[in-house]
Amino acid sequence: MIPLDFHPTGRHFLQIPGPSPVPDRILRAMSLPTIDHRGPEFGALGLKVLKGIKDVFQTKHPVIIYPASGTGAWEAALSNTLSPGDHVLMYETGHFATLWNRVATRLGLSVEFLTWPGDDAELPNAAGWRHGVQAALIEERLRQDTQHRIKAVCVVHNETSTGVTSDIPAVRRAIDAAQHPALLMVDSISGLGCADFRHDEWGVDVTVSGSQKGLMLPPGISFNAISPRALQASQQAKLPRSFFAWDEIIDMNATGYWPYTPNTNLLYGLSEALDMLQDEGLDNVFARHQRWGEGVRAAVNAWGLPIQCADPEVYSPVLTGVITPQGINADDVRRLIHERFDLSLGTGLGKAKGRMFRMGHLGDSNDLTLLAMVAGVEMGLKLSGVKLQQSGIHAAMDYFAAHPVRRVLNRAA
Amino acid sequence: MIPLDFHPTGRHFLQIPGPSPVPDRILRAMSLPTIDHRGPEFGALGLKVLKGIKDVFQTKHPVIIYPASGTGAWEAALSNTLSPGDHVLMYETGHFATLWNRVATRLGLSVEFLTWPGDDAELPNAAGWRHGVQAALIEERLRQDTQHRIKAVCVVHNETSTGVTSDIPAVRRAIDAAQHPALLMVDSISGLGCADFRHDEWGVDVTVSGSQKGLMLPPGISFNAISPRALQASQQAKLPRSFFAWDEIIDMNATGYWPYTPNTNLLYGLSEALDMLQDEGLDNVFARHQRWGEGVRAAVNAWGLPIQCADPEVYSPVLTGVITPQGINADDVRRLIHERFDLSLGTGLGKAKGRMFRMGHLGDSNDLTLLAMVAGVEMGLKLSGVKLQQSGIHAAMDYFAAHPVRRVLNRAA
Amino acid sequence: MIPLDFHPTGRHFLQIPGPSPVPDRILRAMSLPTIDHRGPEFGALGLKVLKGIKDVFQTKHPVIIYPASGTGAWEAALSNTLSPGDHVLMYETGHFATLWNRVATRLGLSVEFLTWPGDDAELPNAAGWRHGVQAALIEERLRQDTQHRIKAVCVVHNETSTGVTSDIPAVRRAIDAAQHPALLMVDSISGLGCADFRHDEWGVDVTVSGSQKGLMLPPGISFNAISPRALQASQQAKLPRSFFAWDEIIDMNATGYWPYTPNTNLLYGLSEALDMLQDEGLDNVFARHQRWGEGVRAAVNAWGLPIQCADPEVYSPVLTGVITPQGINADDVRRLIHERFDLSLGTGLGKAKGRMFRMGHLGDSNDLTLLAMVAGVEMGLKLSGVKLQQSGIHAAMDYFAAHPVRRVLNRAA
Amino acid sequence: MIPLDFHPTGRHFLQIPGPSPVPDRILRAMSLPTIDHRGPEFGALGLKVLKGIKDVFQTKHPVIIYPASGTGAWEAALSNTLSPGDHVLMYETGHFATLWNRVATRLGLSVEFLTWPGDDAELPNAAGWRHGVQAALIEERLRQDTQHRIKAVCVVHNETSTGVTSDIPAVRRAIDAAQHPALLMVDSISGLGCADFRHDEWGVDVTVSGSQKGLMLPPGISFNAISPRALQASQQAKLPRSFFAWDEIIDMNATGYWPYTPNTNLLYGLSEALDMLQDEGLDNVFARHQRWGEGVRAAVNAWGLPIQCADPEVYSPVLTGVITPQGINADDVRRLIHERFDLSLGTGLGKAKGRMFRMGHLGDSNDLTLLAMVAGVEMGLKLSGVKLQQSGIHAAMDYFAAHPVRRVLNRAA
Repeated sequence: MIPLDFHPTGRHFLQIPGPSPVPDRILRAMSLPTIDHRGPEFGALGLKVLKGIKDVFQTKHPVIIYPASGTGAWEAALSNTLSPGDHVLMYETGHFATLWNRVATRLGLSVEFLTWPGDDAELPNAAGWRHGVQAALIEERLRQDTQHRIKAVCVVHNETSTGVTSDIPAVRRAIDAAQHPALLMVDSISGLGCADFRHDEWGVDVTVSGSQKGLMLPPGISFNAISPRALQASQQAKLPRSFFAWDEIIDMNATGYWPYTPNTNLLYGLSEALDMLQDEGLDNVFARHQRWGEGVRAAVNAWGLPIQCADPEVYSPVLTGVITPQGINADDVRRLIHERFDLSLGTGLGKAKGRMFRMGHLGDSNDLTLLAMVAGVEMGLKLSGVKLQQSGIHAAMDYFAAHPVRRVLNRAA
Repeated sequence: MIPLDFHPTGRHFLQIPGPSPVPDRILRAMSLPTIDHRGPEFGALGLKVLKGIKDVFQTKHPVIIYPASGTGAWEAALSNTLSPGDHVLMYETGHFATLWNRVATRLGLSVEFLTWPGDDAELPNAAGWRHGVQAALIEERLRQDTQHRIKAVCVVHNETSTGVTSDIPAVRRAIDAAQHPALLMVDSISGLGCADFRHDEWGVDVTVSGSQKGLMLPPGISFNAISPRALQASQQAKLPRSFFAWDEIIDMNATGYWPYTPNTNLLYGLSEALDMLQDEGLDNVFARHQRWGEGVRAAVNAWGLPIQCADPEVYSPVLTGVITPQGINADDVRRLIHERFDLSLGTGLGKAKGRMFRMGHLGDSNDLTLLAMVAGVEMGLKLSGVKLQQSGIHAAMDYFAAHPVRRVLNRAA
Repeated sequence: MIPLDFHPTGRHFLQIPGPSPVPDRILRAMSLPTIDHRGPEFGALGLKVLKGIKDVFQTKHPVIIYPASGTGAWEAALSNTLSPGDHVLMYETGHFATLWNRVATRLGLSVEFLTWPGDDAELPNAAGWRHGVQAALIEERLRQDTQHRIKAVCVVHNETSTGVTSDIPAVRRAIDAAQHPALLMVDSISGLGCADFRHDEWGVDVTVSGSQKGLMLPPGISFNAISPRALQASQQAKLPRSFFAWDEIIDMNATGYWPYTPNTNLLYGLSEALDMLQDEGLDNVFARHQRWGEGVRAAVNAWGLPIQCADPEVYSPVLTGVITPQGINADDVRRLIHERFDLSLGTGLGKAKGRMFRMGHLGDSNDLTLLAMVAGVEMGLKLSGVKLQQSGIHAAMDYFAAHPVRRVLNRAA
Repeated sequence: MIPLDFHPTGRHFLQIPGPSPVPDRILRAMSLPTIDHRGPEFGALGLKVLKGIKDVFQTKHPVIIYPASGTGAWEAALSNTLSPGDHVLMYETGHFATLWNRVATRLGLSVEFLTWPGDDAELPNAAGWRHGVQAALIEERLRQDTQHRIKAVCVVHNETSTGVTSDIPAVRRAIDAAQHPALLMVDSISGLGCADFRHDEWGVDVTVSGSQKGLMLPPGISFNAISPRALQASQQAKLPRSFFAWDEIIDMNATGYWPYTPNTNLLYGLSEALDMLQDEGLDNVFARHQRWGEGVRAAVNAWGLPIQCADPEVYSPVLTGVITPQGINADDVRRLIHERFDLSLGTGLGKAKGRMFRMGHLGDSNDLTLLAMVAGVEMGLKLSGVKLQQSGIHAAMDYFAAHPVRRVLNRAA
C-alpha cells in the first residue's frame, strides 16, 4: 500500500462536504469477510437494510440500493422514468444541479434550466448559486406548459457545491398549484441523513441519494426512493436501461437479494449506519447538524467573510460555503491549509472555482472536530493575508459552549 | 449489526466462484479512513491503481475503473461502442453469456446468439453449457455477414456458471480469418487474475471484468479495458450513456482522479491486491489456479460424477462444475452442506438449476482450504445418498501431496 | 510491517493448542481506539468483564485479570498465597506442570513433584506424561504429612503438552479425605472455556488461566480465580509481590478499574469473547470441544498411531498428542507440514521433544477446519514415510458426518 | 460489545498523557491473525522488534520486552538487580516516583526518598512535584554513603503526573562525581519516543518503559533496557523472580523467541510503531513533541494559569500540567469537559488531586488535534467559572501558525 497520508502523524481532518468522516464502527463493519450473495445470511442482511433505509427516506415505498456511486443514481432516476427526447425542467442551484443537467442531456433528454434572475456583487457570474430553488418560477413555468410536455421537475435538495438547502415542499406545492402532472425528482445526495427529508409526506416521486454523506459510509452505493407514480411511469419509459433498471431489482429485493452481485461490504456498513441513525433518532440527527451549522456560521460571520448562501432561510445544516476576498484564490488557501494543518476543505466548483471554499459539518464529527476545522481555517486565512474582522474561533466556541446538545425523543419511540 | 454467520464458531468456507475469499490484508486496507477524492493523496492512489491494473489486463491502453459492480461494466462495453439497433454476435457458453445477451437486448441491440450444435445426455437442454466457444461457428457466421452488419462479437472467457474457459485467441483468429471488422468484446469477469488473459496480444477490443474474483476484492468496482479501435468506435456510438461514458473518465484519469466520486475504500483494496499479484508474479498466479483445478477435478473424477465442462481442453482453473446424479437435487445437497459444514458452494444457474453445483478454487485459498471443501462436499454427497465410486478426498490429497508448488520467475523480473 | 505469512496465498491453519485461532469478531473488537483507563466508559467495560469472567470460571468469588500473559498468573497464584520456603506438592503431568514447578522453585518454594509410577514402552522417559493426575498418590502423600507442612497442592487441569485432562474433583476429594488444609491450586490455562471447569463446586482455591486458549483471544491477559480461603491465606503470605498482588487490584475492581494501566484493547476482546461464550452457552461450548476431540482421535486411531494420552478416561477435548513411530522425528514432520500445507501443529515439548506432535482442536474452528488439519497431517505423515494403517481423514469425516451438533439449552436460560 | 463511547457521534479526543491516541495503522496491524509463537514467522517478527527497539532506547545492549504492562517493568528492574533489604535511593518527582517507591517497598527493599527542599505557594504539600530531580542532592547523599550501602539510584525521566522532564545526564554525573557504584535506574515510561533518551550515552543501567506513550501502542507490553553492569548485578541479585527474570528471556531472544507466550498482537503493533518512528527519524519525533509542548504552554500562559512544572528548563514535551485556581476542583472541570466536549484530560494524581489537570501532547496527534484540546479546555474552564486573562486558543494558534514544522535529517541517514 502506498502511503495515503502525506503528514507524519495524527488523524486527517476530512471536512469536505462528503465523503464525510466515516465512524470507525462502520469501517470495522465493512471489514467483515465477504459472504455468499445467494446464501441465507445475505438474505437476512438484505431484508434488514432494505427495510431500514426506508425509514431514513421517510417512505413506505421501495428504495433501490445500487452497487454504484451517486452519479449512477442520477442516471437511474431519469432512465427509469423518461423516454428519449422528453422535456425536463431543472433548476440551477449550483454545480451539482448543473452536472445532473449534463447527465440528462447526455441521455438525450431535452433540458430546460431555470436560474435565479437576480444579480450578485460577489459572484456576478453565479448569482443563482447563492439562493435556493424559487418555487414560484417553477410554478410559473409549469402553468405555461398547458400541453404537459414537461415530464419531470428536477431539483437539488441540499446543493453540496454551495451550502443551500432548498424548500422541497414548496416545489411540490408549486407543481400542485399548477395542476401539472410532471414527476418531482429530488437529489438529496448530501441532504439525506443530515437535513430533514420526507419522501412520502413531501410528495417526491424519485429521490436520489448516496452513501458518503449523512449515512457516513464510504462512497460506492447509491439510492433511488420511488413513489407509486414513478413506478408506474417506469412501465412506459423508453430510455434504454439495464444495470439501473428498477423492475428486476424490486422483484429480487422481495427476498433480500439482488439480480446481480451487490456491494456486500458496503451493505455491512449500511447496516451499521442504519443502527446508528436509529439509535440516535432522526430528529436528533437533524438537530445535531443544525447546531453544527450555527456554530460554524458564527465563525464565518465573525471573520466578516460572506457566506455563499445569501439567504439565511436556506442555510445548509451540512456545509457552509465561504467566499474569499477579491484577489485571494480560495484554492491557494485550501492548499496551504492542507499542507500545514492536515485539513481538507471543499473546493469551489464550476462557476465558483477559486472564489470560495466549503466547510463540511457532517459525518463522524463533534464540537471539537469542528472547532479544529475553524481554527485551521482561521490560521490559513491569516497566513494567506486575509484580514479578518473578529475571532471566528471564539465565536464558534462561544456558540457551542452556550448551546449544549438537547436530545429530543425519537418520534419512533 | 445483525449476526451474519449462522454457525456458532469457525470461519465460513466461501467456495463459490466469486465473490472469492478476500485476504485479511485486503479487508484491512479497505478499512483505512476515506480520504478527499480531490486531494493530493487520492491522486497518488489513483495513478498507482490505474497503472497497476493495466499489468493485470496485460495491456498498454486505458483501463476504466467503475465505481459499480460487474454487470455495469457489461453495459458500459456495449453502450460506449454501439448504436441503437446494432447487430451483435454473442455466444451461449452458459448463464452469464445469457445475462450479457439480456443486457444487450434491454439496451436495444439486436442480438444473435450462437449455440453449440451438439447433444448432451446429462444436460439435454443445456448441451452447449458443457463446451467452450467454437471459433469455427463464429468464423462461419462472420463470413456470411458480407455487409458487416455485425458490429461486435461478444464472448465469455471464463464462464462462471459452468467452469469452461474458452480459447479467446481462437476467436480473434476466426474474426481475422473472416476479415471482419467487428469489435471483439470479452467478459473475463471471473477469468482475470486467475487464468492467463492478454488483452493486447489477443487483440481484444473491450475486456469486461470485476473486482470480486481473481482480484480477491469484495464486489463493487468493475473494469473496461479498451483497445484503440474500441476508443475510436466510441466516438461514433450513439447509445445514450453518461455514468458509464468513457470519455470524461479517461480525461480525468490522466491526473489520477475521476469525474465523480470513486469507490475510495475499494480502491485501497485494489492497491493492495495489485501489490499482492505483482509480488507473486502473474505466471505464478495462473499456475497456482491450474494446480488447484487439477486437484479438485481429481476428487470429482474419483467420485465418478461428471464434470460440467465436457471438454478437458477448456477446463476452468477457477471453478469446477459437478453434475449430480438424476434424482438428486444439487441445491438440496448445497443447502445440507451449508447447514452442516458452514461451506458455501455455487448453485446451478439458469438451465443448469438443480442439476449441478460449482466448487470455486480461487481467491484467498490454499491446499488445505480446498481439501476442506472437497471433504465437505464428499460428506454432503454421501449424506444426500449419492453413491461415490472412490474417495475424492484421497484423490485430491494425493494430487496435492505429489505436486508441490513450483514458483516460476516473474516475467517482469 | 514485515510479511508474517511465508505462504503466498490463503489463510494459515493455526492448529497448535494455543494461541488458538482468534475469531475475526474478536480481532475487530480489539482494534477499537484505546480509551482513558480512568474514564467512565472504561468503568463500564471493567465491570462488565469482571462480572462475565466469573461465569466462565463458574465462581461467585473474585477473578483477577492481569495485564500479563499466563506464566505471570502462575507466579501470582504462588506469590500471593505462600511464604519463602513453603512446601508445595506438585504433580508431573507434562511440560507445563514442570514449568510451573520451575516457577515455584525460582520463587524460593520447596517443591515436591509427584510422578506416575508406571512404565511406558513408547515414551520410557516420560511415562507419566501419558496419564492424568493420580489423586490416590496425592491423598497418600498428604496423609503422611501429619504436620501439615505442605501448604499447597498444585495440579494442571488440561496439560497442554500432552492432551490429558485430569480429574480435578478427584484431587479435591483426595485432599478432603486426608483432612489436609493445603490449598488446591489448578492451572486451567488451556482448559478454561473448552473443558468443563467449576471453580466453586470443585473446591479450587486458586485457578490460573490465560486468554489465548478457550477464550479465543490473543495472548496478553491472564487470570487468578480466588476462593475465600486463598484470599485469607494471602493476608499471611510473605513472598514479596507487587505487580501481581491481589489486594490493590480487588479494591480497585469494585468500581471497574485497576490500580495500574490495564491491557485495554485485550479487554475489548475479552468483552466480545464473553458475549460469544454466553450466547452459545457453556454446555454447548464444552460439547463442541468433546465432539471435535472425538473426530480427531478417530483419525489418529485409524492411522494406527498411539495417542499421547494413554488413558481414554482423560482424553483432552482441547488437543490430541500423536506419537510418531521410532525413527521419525516429529519436528521434521511438523516442519514439512508447515512448509507444504501452511499448517502449524504443536511441537513435542521437553521430555517428549521429537517424539510427538500436538493437534489443537480449540478456538475459532469448525468441522472443515479440523478436517483440513487432519488432511494436512495425513499428507505430511505419508510424505515423511510413515506407514498409516487406514485413512484417518475418512475416519474423521465419517465421525463428523454421523454426529451432527446437538445444541443443549443453556443452563443459565 | 457494550458501547464504549458515551457520545453519539465523532471521535473521542484522548488527550491524557497516556495511553496516547493510537494510529489507525497500528490498530490495524494489531488485528492481524495471531500466529504460532514457536513458528518461523514469529522468529522473524521477534528478531525485527528486538533489534528495532534498541534504536529507540539508543542502546546496543539487550532490551527485554515483557508481555505485561509498565508497572511490571518497574518491578522487573528492581527484582533482577537487587536483594532483599537492599537500600535504594529514590527521588520524589511526583506520583509515579511515589508508586515506584511503593513497588520497591513491597518487594522488601529499603527505600530512601529524596524530596525537593523548597516551598510552593500553589501546592504547599507537593512543592517537589513542580521541579525536576536535583542532581546535587543525590550527589550529596551518595558522598555520605561511604560504605556504599545504597545499591541503586532510581529516578523518573518524564514524570507523567506533573509534566516535568528531569535531566538524566546530570544524575549520572552526580553518581560519577560521588564515585559511587550504585546502579542508575530510570523510569522513562512516558519519555521514551517523545523526549530524547540515550540509554548508553547517558550511562543508565536499567531503563524502564512501556508501550502506551511515545510508542503509540495500547498498553500491554513493557521494557527493561539493560546495561552490562546491570546484567552483571543480576547474577548476584537475590530477590525472587521468575516471570520477570532476565536470564531465560535473553537466552531465548537470541533466535527471536520468548520462554513463554509473548503478547503476539501487540508485537505486531510494535513492529509497525518502530517502522513509523524510524521513517520519521527520532530527532524529528523529539522536535515534534517539543513544538507541541510550546504551543500548548502558550495557551496556558495566556490563560494566566500556573503550569505545574515551575522550572521552564524541565518543561515536559509530553504533557503539561495546569493548576486550577483555589476553589475550582480540577476534576469537576475535567468531568464537565468530558461530558460536553468528548475530551479526556489527565486527572491530578495523589498529592495533586483536585488541584490540577494534565493535557497530553503525544501520540497520534497534530496541530489541529491539540488546538481542539485547547479549545475544549478553554470552554470548560469558562463554563466552570474560571477567569482567564487572555485567549489561550489564539496564543496556541499563533504559535503553531508562526512555527511550521521543520524536518531535520535523520541522524541514521
